Amino acid sequence: MSSSPTLDQLIEALCCLPGVGRKSAQRMALYLIDKNRDGAKQIADSMQTALQKVGHCELCRNFSDTPHCQICDNPKRDPSTLCVVETPSDVLAIEASGSFEGKYFVLLGKLSPIDGIGPDQLGMDVLRKRLQQENIREIILATNPTIEGEITAQFIADLAAEYAIPTSRIAHGVPVGGELEYVDSGTLSRAFSGRQTITTEES
Amino acid sequence: MSSSPTLDQLIEALCCLPGVGRKSAQRMALYLIDKNRDGAKQIADSMQTALQKVGHCELCRNFSDTPHCQICDNPKRDPSTLCVVETPSDVLAIEASGSFEGKYFVLLGKLSPIDGIGPDQLGMDVLRKRLQQENIREIILATNPTIEGEITAQFIADLAAEYAIPTSRIAHGVPVGGELEYVDSGTLSRAFSGRQTITTEES
Repeated sequence: MSSSPTLDQLIEALCCLPGVGRKSAQRMALYLIDKNRDGAKQIADSMQTALQKVGHCELCRNFSDTPHCQICDNPKRDPSTLCVVETPSDVLAIEASGSFEGKYFVLLGKLSPIDGIGPDQLGMDVLRKRLQQENIREIILATNPTIEGEITAQFIADLAAEYAIPTSRIAHGVPVGGELEYVDSGTLSRAFSGRQTITTEES
Repeated sequence: MSSSPTLDQLIEALCCLPGVGRKSAQRMALYLIDKNRDGAKQIADSMQTALQKVGHCELCRNFSDTPHCQICDNPKRDPSTLCVVETPSDVLAIEASGSFEGKYFVLLGKLSPIDGIGPDQLGMDVLRKRLQQENIREIILATNPTIEGEITAQFIADLAAEYAIPTSRIAHGVPVGGELEYVDSGTLSRAFSGRQTITTEES
């Protein structure tokens, strides 16, 4: 039993956050109400706004406040390369690495017939239209290296072949900074099969 | 750069939660907007309500929606024992243990002259009035076993002595389920100095 039912409700609500149990929710609620009311107001306000405003981009299916998202609308991004990813978090991770300057297509899932997720659920009609209409010169497949991710990548590669667009798959192998002895065997076998020739000056 | 500025703002706001960094905030925001919009709405609403409603109880200084909190107003709680704690989280922890049936007084801090926290900041005037007016038969001091906590406990013990109210301090020692070899030396020395005589049937 607590002293304030309102506070109990807030704790209860915070429990729905991923990775947050009752103890952490309690700590968060008490901290916000006790020490950071401005922060609490900001969370409440920005969550309300996000719930009202955030939808999906018509072009890339990523989260967006407007019909076309900021990345799709950005004239500085190269429209000739398209990177296909599974989720919006993948986009955030790639953007944080700064290694890609083109545009995206977000599947919002991966092919998984057992869960009832087929091409229609992954927006393949939208992708097909883009392949037809836009002048795309390369598709980079950045789905996860899981069975479903690989099948999804293959499916999109087949789709791209219909429009004669070259596709590539991001490299999978030993992570930079990783040590061989701690790398799992699946990754190691991918690292070997995906080995690249070293070009020396003489060759 | 992200696809939605609104989502960026939400991620930014969630970063102010204790123990939540940018990666976790990102995961929380995407989860809420993508998979649990009802949960997000509940968090936003309950946070708004808490910000408007939650203040402090006039009697015990704990968080409360009303002038007197639910615990102070509960006729089933024993009004003759008063447990003094530092923070509202301490009350939640004690309530969860179910080991105390009396009422509370929350200091909302501890004596710390170096931080400018004296008796006035800890509501000692409110406590003094309660000691005068209520029929309190025991004060249990449950401040933390830190230097400031001990000084605060001593200060309140002295105050209670003015009104001839017996005070006790909660026991500090080896935690139940803890193993001696992993217990720090401060705790061990408290466990020895606070040892209790075992009464056998013969004695």
